[in-house]
Amino acid sequence: MKDITYPTFDDVIAAHERIAPYIHRTPILTSTYLNELTGADLYFKCENFQKAGAFKVRGACNAVFGLPKEKLAKGVATHSSGNHALSLAYAAGRRGIPCTVVMPRTAPEAKKAAVRGYGGRIVECEPSTSGREAKFAEVVAETGAEFVHPYNDLRVITGQATCSRELLEQVDDLDAIVAPIGGGGMISGTCLTVSNIAPGVEIYAAEPDQANDAYRSFKAGHIIADDAPVTVADGLKVPLKENTWHYVSNHVTDILTASEEEIIAAMRITWERMKIVIEPSCAVPLATIWKNPKVFAGKRVGVIITGGNVDMGKLPWIKG
Amino acid sequence: MKDITYPTFDDVIAAHERIAPYIHRTPILTSTYLNELTGADLYFKCENFQKAGAFKVRGACNAVFGLPKEKLAKGVATHSSGNHALSLAYAAGRRGIPCTVVMPRTAPEAKKAAVRGYGGRIVECEPSTSGREAKFAEVVAETGAEFVHPYNDLRVITGQATCSRELLEQVDDLDAIVAPIGGGGMISGTCLTVSNIAPGVEIYAAEPDQANDAYRSFKAGHIIADDAPVTVADGLKVPLKENTWHYVSNHVTDILTASEEEIIAAMRITWERMKIVIEPSCAVPLATIWKNPKVFAGKRVGVIITGGNVDMGKLPWIKG
Repeated sequence: MKDITYPTFDDVIAAHERIAPYIHRTPILTSTYLNELTGADLYFKCENFQKAGAFKVRGACNAVFGLPKEKLAKGVATHSSGNHALSLAYAAGRRGIPCTVVMPRTAPEAKKAAVRGYGGRIVECEPSTSGREAKFAEVVAETGAEFVHPYNDLRVITGQATCSRELLEQVDDLDAIVAPIGGGGMISGTCLTVSNIAPGVEIYAAEPDQANDAYRSFKAGHIIADDAPVTVADGLKVPLKENTWHYVSNHVTDILTASEEEIIAAMRITWERMKIVIEPSCAVPLATIWKNPKVFAGKRVGVIITGGNVDMGKLPWIKG
Repeated sequence: MKDITYPTFDDVIAAHERIAPYIHRTPILTSTYLNELTGADLYFKCENFQKAGAFKVRGACNAVFGLPKEKLAKGVATHSSGNHALSLAYAAGRRGIPCTVVMPRTAPEAKKAAVRGYGGRIVECEPSTSGREAKFAEVVAETGAEFVHPYNDLRVITGQATCSRELLEQVDDLDAIVAPIGGGGMISGTCLTVSNIAPGVEIYAAEPDQANDAYRSFKAGHIIADDAPVTVADGLKVPLKENTWHYVSNHVTDILTASEEEIIAAMRITWERMKIVIEPSCAVPLATIWKNPKVFAGKRVGVIITGGNVDMGKLPWIKG
């Protein structure tokens, strides 16, 4: 076992200054309809309006703009189910360095097009954790690029932590924050910020029933990983790793899950009533709040809308 | 011919005060991507985030909250292709008076459900101007309700005028404003405000090729009306009437049109890139800006996103 020095809140402040020129301070939206539906006061932190369409640009920018000069020429590389890929391509493009991303061949076309639009190079792999990691080893051997893991990288986690820092500045007296959990990068960043500056705020992670490895890990007390779960929430298929497990196991209040039908219903009602485009992954928090009124009713709840990159040709409530 | 006293800008200010408790001051959004695509600086006034999901709530609230006490018991009635219907139902619900709306039986289910949700009563008619007006005469005879026309009513036009008043406060130095035109309520309100407080700002109306009666009227110098045009922009099928023709003929700079394919492409790219849900009708302005760079390139252009009430089960780029 190696010693790990976890980031402090000063590191979060430094990351926020470093990435500020390249990200949006995203707005908070509310919905009278959804408040009445759930019985809670919901404050949606709209990272779907973020640069590159997702919160992941925070962590990617922190890693890329913190890179020392001697590492710039070989660029950066990663594997990702989508948003981290295009966020890293965006960040690398802004710094003018090469970026290679290994993406599942089944990733949404809109995400692939966006990666290429930012100047990133795509190498396709089979849609499983094992397939992705094998292909990625080849890419690193070939390019010598700096690996920026989509979530198990402390630079990335520190960048994601800036999101809940803004949320806590924008909304007073929150009782809880709910964010989706896949690999755990956003939740870990939320834990990093909340445990330091708002330790009374509860942190709930929301996960699909059909990819509930984080839920099972949390209950078991150790990481359980599935290789290729199937869910409409395609950003949440990846497993926890040691750095995100550190935060999840120490700071998360509870992990709640929702069915595919509940996720799709929450996504559709958000589009219909709030008039915003959100990914299936970030409908999972609303789905869990909607089905757990005993947990959330009467509370002031921050809900992190993690992204809005959707393949418009394939919507889960329309049979194509 | 009867004498008509048209509203002044003082009437607009009074309307704004009257309706302020019941409407949102909607935000302005921008998109680097769409600016690069069109060569213009676009400022989107997001009435899709408005109460009841559309700008029409401004005019409906002005009519309903300006109603004298002796008219309250019999309530209000209207015919509408959609957004005015649910806006009037919303306004009547807030004032606690009855509301009956005649809607085409083909109107989107989401709009019908919203009217009922606000407490409005729906009477269905055939989907043509003539069919609608015949059914409406029956409703007025039966109820004695106050008729609030969806756009040819000066109280309604004065209410819509508050939208461009906000836009001009929110964005400095606009060169032009583009709004969709159906019956001409929003465009007339825009003319009312702009001609009084920003007479140098150009006003463009955007219309579907397949429902281009306002375009033909503008070129001919008199009202030309079609009975039942077919277009994806279902809010723009109705013809100009004498009050909106007054504003259009005196103050509009030009009317530009777009094909069905161009409208659908503009709608889809707005959803994909701006992450907001907009109706086909309010994609028409972007479609006309995109295809007319000689008119708009280099200009600061306000674009009125008129509404976001979409039947999510039927999206025009997906064959169901």
